[in-house]
Amino acid sequence: MTTRYKVVLAYDGTNFAGFQRQPHQRTVEQVFSKAVNKMAKDPAEPIMIYGAGRTDAGVHAFGQTIHFDLPYAINAEGVRRGLNSLLPTDVLVKSAAIVADDFHARYDTVGKRYWYRAYQNEFVDPFKRHYTGHFKFQADIDRIQRALPDLVGKHDFSSFVASGSQAHDHVREIYSATAWALPGEGEIQFEFCGSGFLYNQVRIMVAVLMEIGQGRRAVDCIPALLAAQDREQARGTAPASGLYMKKVYYDAAELRADLANDPHQ
Amino acid sequence: MTTRYKVVLAYDGTNFAGFQRQPHQRTVEQVFSKAVNKMAKDPAEPIMIYGAGRTDAGVHAFGQTIHFDLPYAINAEGVRRGLNSLLPTDVLVKSAAIVADDFHARYDTVGKRYWYRAYQNEFVDPFKRHYTGHFKFQADIDRIQRALPDLVGKHDFSSFVASGSQAHDHVREIYSATAWALPGEGEIQFEFCGSGFLYNQVRIMVAVLMEIGQGRRAVDCIPALLAAQDREQARGTAPASGLYMKKVYYDAAELRADLANDPHQ
Repeated sequence: MTTRYKVVLAYDGTNFAGFQRQPHQRTVEQVFSKAVNKMAKDPAEPIMIYGAGRTDAGVHAFGQTIHFDLPYAINAEGVRRGLNSLLPTDVLVKSAAIVADDFHARYDTVGKRYWYRAYQNEFVDPFKRHYTGHFKFQADIDRIQRALPDLVGKHDFSSFVASGSQAHDHVREIYSATAWALPGEGEIQFEFCGSGFLYNQVRIMVAVLMEIGQGRRAVDCIPALLAAQDREQARGTAPASGLYMKKVYYDAAELRADLANDPHQ
Repeated sequence: MTTRYKVVLAYDGTNFAGFQRQPHQRTVEQVFSKAVNKMAKDPAEPIMIYGAGRTDAGVHAFGQTIHFDLPYAINAEGVRRGLNSLLPTDVLVKSAAIVADDFHARYDTVGKRYWYRAYQNEFVDPFKRHYTGHFKFQADIDRIQRALPDLVGKHDFSSFVASGSQAHDHVREIYSATAWALPGEGEIQFEFCGSGFLYNQVRIMVAVLMEIGQGRRAVDCIPALLAAQDREQARGTAPASGLYMKKVYYDAAELRADLANDPHQ
């Protein structure tokens, strides 16, 4: 008899070589797996953990979601507190819940939401250096907002996927794409909600949108970029430090409610 | 002929062993001094730099102020940009100005302003771990606000100075002491403006105030604490990571204007 738990994680990606386990690297998967197994008294057969998706080195999360099975049933609040006592301070279990035995953190997703913070200034702000992507040139938020609707909907995003992607099918659906300016902070922020995202897709979209905002691309360039299905044409990738995995959806009703209530929509 | 420059610095104190130069340690003074001398082509007689005050390891700054003399006159904007090109990304020159040859960053101060961010939760937030002081127990902002006026005015702060202080006279004047809660952020923030502060004084005051807020000390305990002139009675020191050197004043009129306009007053 095992019990399946779903936990929602926040982490500061600065000191991680990404989510996925890699030899000789400090990764979120490695430190989380170590904490789960320690909590379970390091069983002979290690407990496996499954994440909703990978994040690259430097990418942050508020809503990474993981499932794993424990060989016993303790209450979810005990799991949250037990793991937080064992995890390093750059990873936090925000919530834990007991879920059905067939719940899968990766395969059961119905949508994901990413947030991106772009900081615009000639020099980096010391307090934003790990938490925003740095752009030397100012972008016009109005140009970006006019371009965004061209990304929404079901498209082949082959122009917006990094080499190294293992996905065969590059068709994804974007449910909402928004951007707003925080002039006092020198920031433009983006939020993308979609069925799923290809490797580096959000960072490549942000790079293109910032170039549109800076006047280095036409406002209406996106349809042709999508049609080209050619990564060479999108070129840039916005820095990892500005990207946050904000939320992973497993409930279509919750996803619809969030889309209906999006304050930046 | 030399030209004296005054620069205002922001730094993220996380990866510094404080402001003051120390052997085999990365300090703000050391990296800033290196940048100034590099900008001046490493003259045979090194350029000396003078800061308004020291900050401990982990303490941040928005308004640290430094003066130094260059053996030539270039415009202040050139100094700002030149230094920012040479400094590491955790230090930023916010502004630079040419000042009178007798200006002194340390001796000419008429006041200083510190900000403190206290985060209250059982576990640390990954994104706040370097930028707030962590307190496990909730404090009542109302109790803190009732205690604060007892710190304002001219007092002997011997109960609020860390051992290791080189000050002989422990009398300082606090012009304003304010605190407010950000419930959504789980934070209580403090601001103190005064003639000057003793070694660790702000962090010891915050520790006492948080204990008052948590009900571990009486709301009216401060007059007796001040009268005791005994560091043993104040005990705690709030974590360095929550402290920010916000502003250093050299102009009494500017200080008065800020005190008159304090939004949290």
